[in-house]
Amino acid sequence: MAQLLLHITDFNEPQWRDSFAAALPGHRVVLRDEDYDPATIDYLFIWKPKLDAFDNLTGLKAVLSLGAGVDALLKHPRLPRNVPVVRFIDDDLSQRMSDYVVANVAMHTRLWTRFAEDQQAKRWVQLYPPPAWEATVGIMGLGVLGLDAIKHLRVFGYKLRGWSRTPKQVEGVETFAGDGQLDTFLEGVDILVNLLPLTPETQGILNYETFSKLNRRGLTDGPVVINAARGGHQREADIVRALTDGTLRAASLDVFEVEPLPRHSPLWELPNCFITPHIAAASSERTGVAFFSKAIHDHEAGKPLPNTVDLERGY
Amino acid sequence: MAQLLLHITDFNEPQWRDSFAAALPGHRVVLRDEDYDPATIDYLFIWKPKLDAFDNLTGLKAVLSLGAGVDALLKHPRLPRNVPVVRFIDDDLSQRMSDYVVANVAMHTRLWTRFAEDQQAKRWVQLYPPPAWEATVGIMGLGVLGLDAIKHLRVFGYKLRGWSRTPKQVEGVETFAGDGQLDTFLEGVDILVNLLPLTPETQGILNYETFSKLNRRGLTDGPVVINAARGGHQREADIVRALTDGTLRAASLDVFEVEPLPRHSPLWELPNCFITPHIAAASSERTGVAFFSKAIHDHEAGKPLPNTVDLERGY
Repeated sequence: MAQLLLHITDFNEPQWRDSFAAALPGHRVVLRDEDYDPATIDYLFIWKPKLDAFDNLTGLKAVLSLGAGVDALLKHPRLPRNVPVVRFIDDDLSQRMSDYVVANVAMHTRLWTRFAEDQQAKRWVQLYPPPAWEATVGIMGLGVLGLDAIKHLRVFGYKLRGWSRTPKQVEGVETFAGDGQLDTFLEGVDILVNLLPLTPETQGILNYETFSKLNRRGLTDGPVVINAARGGHQREADIVRALTDGTLRAASLDVFEVEPLPRHSPLWELPNCFITPHIAAASSERTGVAFFSKAIHDHEAGKPLPNTVDLERGY
Repeated sequence: MAQLLLHITDFNEPQWRDSFAAALPGHRVVLRDEDYDPATIDYLFIWKPKLDAFDNLTGLKAVLSLGAGVDALLKHPRLPRNVPVVRFIDDDLSQRMSDYVVANVAMHTRLWTRFAEDQQAKRWVQLYPPPAWEATVGIMGLGVLGLDAIKHLRVFGYKLRGWSRTPKQVEGVETFAGDGQLDTFLEGVDILVNLLPLTPETQGILNYETFSKLNRRGLTDGPVVINAARGGHQREADIVRALTDGTLRAASLDVFEVEPLPRHSPLWELPNCFITPHIAAASSERTGVAFFSKAIHDHEAGKPLPNTVDLERGY
């Protein structure tokens, strides 16, 4: 019998406990306010762990992260460095993220914010958007989420570029890798989509210099940036400047340097910036419980853990 | 040698003439202000024909319509009823239309207008949109455009319903036909997409009664209507009422009863109505010339004309 401890701030812990208990017969699922011996906890399921989250959990076999992004978790000062970290990415999460990415890419290709401004002014200007296959979408990050977005975008015939830390081959995608090829990658991109993990190397990568390198001769009115990864990737002062001076035509932002986005942020009022409150791809209880119950079940049976994080690399 | 006469109001006729001439070596392409014998014209290529458009064209083999929708053309009082009418639909046009449909369906599934209103109010409310596979999209019209939209929507996993005049079988789509099954079709639809031809039967089909039959228990905040076919399909007073009283959550309209949409229309000011100026799917010169040049070339070689219109049926 394995013991699973839940520590998921902001979520309904008793409800998740019941779901896990139902999915893991023969194992024990406990909450922090219940009686248990910390040394006997095998798995810790976490979201926004408090400072003492890992204290006395001396028998941990794995830390299970409800979030796909583990940047905040890896900065936790007391995260044990010798215990595997498993992050949650499944088909459900990938598809929700691809829904977000394709919806925003397609609307921006179709000059969405331009028509919204015309509507505001009651202006009827028949500007014909380019078809999908005349636009080049550049995906930063070629992990599970990036590849799933590419799969969906391909159906529309978008030209595709991809950029990642290490060289990768993806069918039908022109790929670039590392700092050395970033500029060449950006030069050919009309719509930039960020799906990178947040690491010290990718921190602030969405900055004015990056925006000014995007293709200015592609889409009508200039390039677009879509960030569905982490607020730490973007410099919001640079986004405001680029959206205001025309370096960027438009942006869709689901994440922010500070969340919730403060009321005084100028981003709220930019008509060419579409804001969503970090909801692009939520982990659902149903699929989260299914994924981690299977991981625990399999691991107890001697199989390897899925989606383990490389602590040095940061994802 | 065949003779092609161009009569395309609002388009650059000399430019299209040059493109047709280049694509039809051995044939003659003329404009209305040039010298020609009307009785020797074989093909008439038209858009918004004037009243005398068909006068004296006694040798016509076909009328070629630049638009996919032929409702206005069929109402022309002097359209010869014994000459085949060919309408333009090709892969390019279908894909542009599908780009429009999927972009708008995806954004509405993701509670687009709700988040836009929250942004306006600088409100951070983490409402999680349903994944695509929890939403049912209902396509009215299962012709070339409807089937292409279905092909693209399927990739995202949307549940699909289709409605057409006569019964049709489409893989993976729950289909309904005729007036008798319209209510049953509507009851299960979260997002209604109109791609019907405009005929006396479909005139005004997007009305308050139709909207009130859509599924109210599906998507957060109620159903959505997307019209990319013809303004004659919709009763705009009903759309305003439904968008205001919550019968509809949101709408995307590319076409209008009167175009350009008059400045006094209340639609402009509705925050849950996204307006585009009839640009969902334009016929491009490159693909239009390619399509009709091939049709003329093939027909001169004895092959049947493509996409011929049933004048009785109206499309």
